[in-house]
Amino acid sequence: MPQIALTLEYDGTRYHGFQFQTNAPTIQGELERAIYRFTGEAVRVRGASRTDAGVHARGQVVSFSTRALYPPETWVKALNYYLPPDIAVKSAFPVPEGFHPRREAVSREYCYFIINDPSPSPLKSRFACLIAQPLDIEAMDRASRLLIGERDFASFTPASYVKNTVRVVYKAMVRRFKRLVVFSMVANAFLPHQVRHTIGVLVRVGTGKMDIEGFRRLLEARIRGLAQPALPPCGLCLMRVNYRRAFEIPS
Amino acid sequence: MPQIALTLEYDGTRYHGFQFQTNAPTIQGELERAIYRFTGEAVRVRGASRTDAGVHARGQVVSFSTRALYPPETWVKALNYYLPPDIAVKSAFPVPEGFHPRREAVSREYCYFIINDPSPSPLKSRFACLIAQPLDIEAMDRASRLLIGERDFASFTPASYVKNTVRVVYKAMVRRFKRLVVFSMVANAFLPHQVRHTIGVLVRVGTGKMDIEGFRRLLEARIRGLAQPALPPCGLCLMRVNYRRAFEIPS
Repeated sequence: MPQIALTLEYDGTRYHGFQFQTNAPTIQGELERAIYRFTGEAVRVRGASRTDAGVHARGQVVSFSTRALYPPETWVKALNYYLPPDIAVKSAFPVPEGFHPRREAVSREYCYFIINDPSPSPLKSRFACLIAQPLDIEAMDRASRLLIGERDFASFTPASYVKNTVRVVYKAMVRRFKRLVVFSMVANAFLPHQVRHTIGVLVRVGTGKMDIEGFRRLLEARIRGLAQPALPPCGLCLMRVNYRRAFEIPS
Repeated sequence: MPQIALTLEYDGTRYHGFQFQTNAPTIQGELERAIYRFTGEAVRVRGASRTDAGVHARGQVVSFSTRALYPPETWVKALNYYLPPDIAVKSAFPVPEGFHPRREAVSREYCYFIINDPSPSPLKSRFACLIAQPLDIEAMDRASRLLIGERDFASFTPASYVKNTVRVVYKAMVRRFKRLVVFSMVANAFLPHQVRHTIGVLVRVGTGKMDIEGFRRLLEARIRGLAQPALPPCGLCLMRVNYRRAFEIPS
């Protein structure tokens, strides 16, 4: 059956994450409902990355099989008509049969946004976490570079059900733009809560509570859930998912 | 009595504007309540600019008289403790007796934010207005420059109760940053709804529905409320208020 892929942007604040749940609003649930209302088909949507409750996305990728043959612009317009205003389809395109947005993805980029200011920022707080203490961005950036490479990231996830905790990190950096601090991380895949636990420890480095050697020891300890605390989901955003050229996603 | 000035940032979405109303939430009302809860004093707060319902601020300036003598950092922390999360005090400082944040202000800067994209943007829609049609930014910018100078802006306000519609515009420009289009305007003061009616007509210029000569004629017509439509309040933000050196506000 023909398959359609979509890129999605969403404000995750009022959702219990991407993955379908029977009794709670989810991104997948809203999307499947919108597709049903448009096409009359009850489809199962697959996502590239299972964002947690409260986490946002600028470039989530999903796909589904459908008998409905519409041009991409029609999918975009019609699904946006049926979706709630905090979820939007940004683009649609046909993909080969058997395409799986998670399996085919070669990497994902997440960003964690921090407002580093003594007072709250009502214009930013929906999509960022407030850290009042001054942050040493250079120290955070240097520590974050230790994450690059193929490593066992067991310390950075509390999830005991994940067997293999080795991942390949291609990029990890911390940058400041005035009061906004952005931690970006690109990896082949991420462990549950990995970015939120990583930035939690990087903030400890930034406030001087841990030095870079301490960060290195934590990484090398490979003790499940050692990296604490996790920062709240509101600051996290799935920026984009990358594919091999054959499945390249227009951005 | 000593006077304190504050700079405020707020998400205006759920407020009926800055100015106090008996039966509806307002910025002034929330601020006066927070001051009362902190100091026990029932004060009247004065604002530099009366933002409308749904309009945001990054640098509103207010002041009030008080017998409470606290250092600025205490005012900031304590009021933020009592204020709801969508209003924040960013700074506090003593001002001379008789200071009036509206009368002493020499100019205000407002920005109007547009997302120029065929599909909605859930990450931006709280603080921007969506315009799906392509916009000719150069034409909009050229038209906006006609506003600069001391002019009668009667066409740009529907408010019949305002007698004098002459204002001095120091800066007016339209810029694009990828999908984000920003219209900024600095003036000695603004007429009611002036920015929202101005950007409404500039968008007509940007979509080719009006040419620059048409915009000039509209400005020169000086017919109350001729500039239509007004864009919605969610895209508008009071960026800052400028004072003579004697009252300079830390930004």
